[in-house]
Amino acid sequence: MTLRIIATGGTFDKHYNELNGTLGFAESHLPEAIARARMTAPVELELLPLLDSLDMQDADRARVLASCQAAPERAIVIVHGTDTMKETAAVLGPAALDKTIVFTGAMIPYQIAGSDAFFNLGFACGVAQALPVGVYVAMNGQIFAWDNVQKNRAAGVFQPM
Amino acid sequence: MTLRIIATGGTFDKHYNELNGTLGFAESHLPEAIARARMTAPVELELLPLLDSLDMQDADRARVLASCQAAPERAIVIVHGTDTMKETAAVLGPAALDKTIVFTGAMIPYQIAGSDAFFNLGFACGVAQALPVGVYVAMNGQIFAWDNVQKNRAAGVFQPM
Amino acid sequence: MTLRIIATGGTFDKHYNELNGTLGFAESHLPEAIARARMTAPVELELLPLLDSLDMQDADRARVLASCQAAPERAIVIVHGTDTMKETAAVLGPAALDKTIVFTGAMIPYQIAGSDAFFNLGFACGVAQALPVGVYVAMNGQIFAWDNVQKNRAAGVFQPM
Amino acid sequence: MTLRIIATGGTFDKHYNELNGTLGFAESHLPEAIARARMTAPVELELLPLLDSLDMQDADRARVLASCQAAPERAIVIVHGTDTMKETAAVLGPAALDKTIVFTGAMIPYQIAGSDAFFNLGFACGVAQALPVGVYVAMNGQIFAWDNVQKNRAAGVFQPM
Repeated sequence: MTLRIIATGGTFDKHYNELNGTLGFAESHLPEAIARARMTAPVELELLPLLDSLDMQDADRARVLASCQAAPERAIVIVHGTDTMKETAAVLGPAALDKTIVFTGAMIPYQIAGSDAFFNLGFACGVAQALPVGVYVAMNGQIFAWDNVQKNRAAGVFQPM
Repeated sequence: MTLRIIATGGTFDKHYNELNGTLGFAESHLPEAIARARMTAPVELELLPLLDSLDMQDADRARVLASCQAAPERAIVIVHGTDTMKETAAVLGPAALDKTIVFTGAMIPYQIAGSDAFFNLGFACGVAQALPVGVYVAMNGQIFAWDNVQKNRAAGVFQPM
Repeated sequence: MTLRIIATGGTFDKHYNELNGTLGFAESHLPEAIARARMTAPVELELLPLLDSLDMQDADRARVLASCQAAPERAIVIVHGTDTMKETAAVLGPAALDKTIVFTGAMIPYQIAGSDAFFNLGFACGVAQALPVGVYVAMNGQIFAWDNVQKNRAAGVFQPM
Repeated sequence: MTLRIIATGGTFDKHYNELNGTLGFAESHLPEAIARARMTAPVELELLPLLDSLDMQDADRARVLASCQAAPERAIVIVHGTDTMKETAAVLGPAALDKTIVFTGAMIPYQIAGSDAFFNLGFACGVAQALPVGVYVAMNGQIFAWDNVQKNRAAGVFQPM
């Protein structure tokens, strides 16, 4: 099954800038992560502007929706910041596309020791190929419906509402 | 959904022994991997004897089957060596248990740079929760039916027969 | 030869806080780094308050000097932020202690992929045991006298003045 | 100071072969390690045949000696297997070259989690620049004279004789 992975930034893709000591965005880590996963099914990687999800505006969410609408693939993984993953999912859910769309992200950036990013990417890729049409959030090893999920910021985990 | 993860060894769990310079088995890396994945759903980890899958005998495969039969969980991930993953799956498939059983493993051990292990674990955990009852192999970002999969040893990838 | 390692923070020891997505200080990584280095000579690790070196005040530098004065060891490594490493070295140099004192740090935190921290720690530990009494900066695989070194912030490297 | 690094293989440079599941030699990790260390002094990397040091013959040790004799640099680091590091050092010591020659290696390969390799490389690079002419073994954060060192294989550490 062909899979589309759409990168939108978020903690997953944060990059350490050694000249100023901050975490920001540079090249996405997804090409390396996909190669490392040894995926043999066709994977289309689409790089949208990489953003901290707290900085996402309506236009950014509209662009994610447009990408999903335009995609020829039926299985889509969206790598997204955790803070507003729910909000972007709430734009895609009511659109009722004939696709399986799975949001994931990370609590620790891909390039930092102990990161959950690579597991989450695999988890979302499995869910996107296996579940029926719909919009889901796949975090903490759990699958949530787009309209029954929230981030518990104090605990740093996703949970039902 | 409660998930059972059954460790049987294989490349995923190979451990470097610094006193003799060989790769063998010691403590499983799965407790660390599960913690790092920040899984919030209940996970039961069952450690069977850790073996190179080329060393697996009929009795070892019977033990895997017995563990699956005894498991109260409906979703099971089996971490297994890649060389005879297909053979163990061929013991479980005809047993037709009322469970979703997903085999995975790794081409590079969890503790070696560039390992696919953590992605594969996530991938299998997603598939095990999302697919209907059956026995599957989840490798290379693809889901294979237990009776239509083989390892291409020259290329180091799984493919349909 | 007994070695004292004094931790003062800096990029070397920055820690990713997954609840707020920032880099700050928590437990020092030095106990893990020292264990991983398999050092068999006695090592005394002294943890001073962990600071971004841009936040260091005169009192903080005085405390580093006091630690060096009080140390019974003749060989001392100071792990320090790179931005004001030179300034703290300029407090220790004129004190003319009868010890070999070597500053080091990192351009990328210990826990981030591609970090130079572990190399730099080894480099400084070698220099501290091998050089005569004096105060040095050991970065980028080079040894600098405390009064002839500067950080080129645009290039992210240390160089003579 | 210009530094020469001579790679001869050993555990430091062992490479995991994912097609047959064994540790052997392929490309040296030293170019990556040197880049990661951000060394700004000129470094000449010389790649001799990469060998398990248990497989080293007299001719191999003669080649290491020849490389040291031919080197224009006064500071040389030799990355070598730990099992016969002492034997090769015993060929170089009596040659009494007018150079500082420092042997190092690793207990865990560079590409395996928890490796000491990168620290040891830094340690040896510091010692090679700081010590007077002679032949040394730099392991476990300690500096040994070439004629007063042995590997304690049961403990996996170097110690005086």
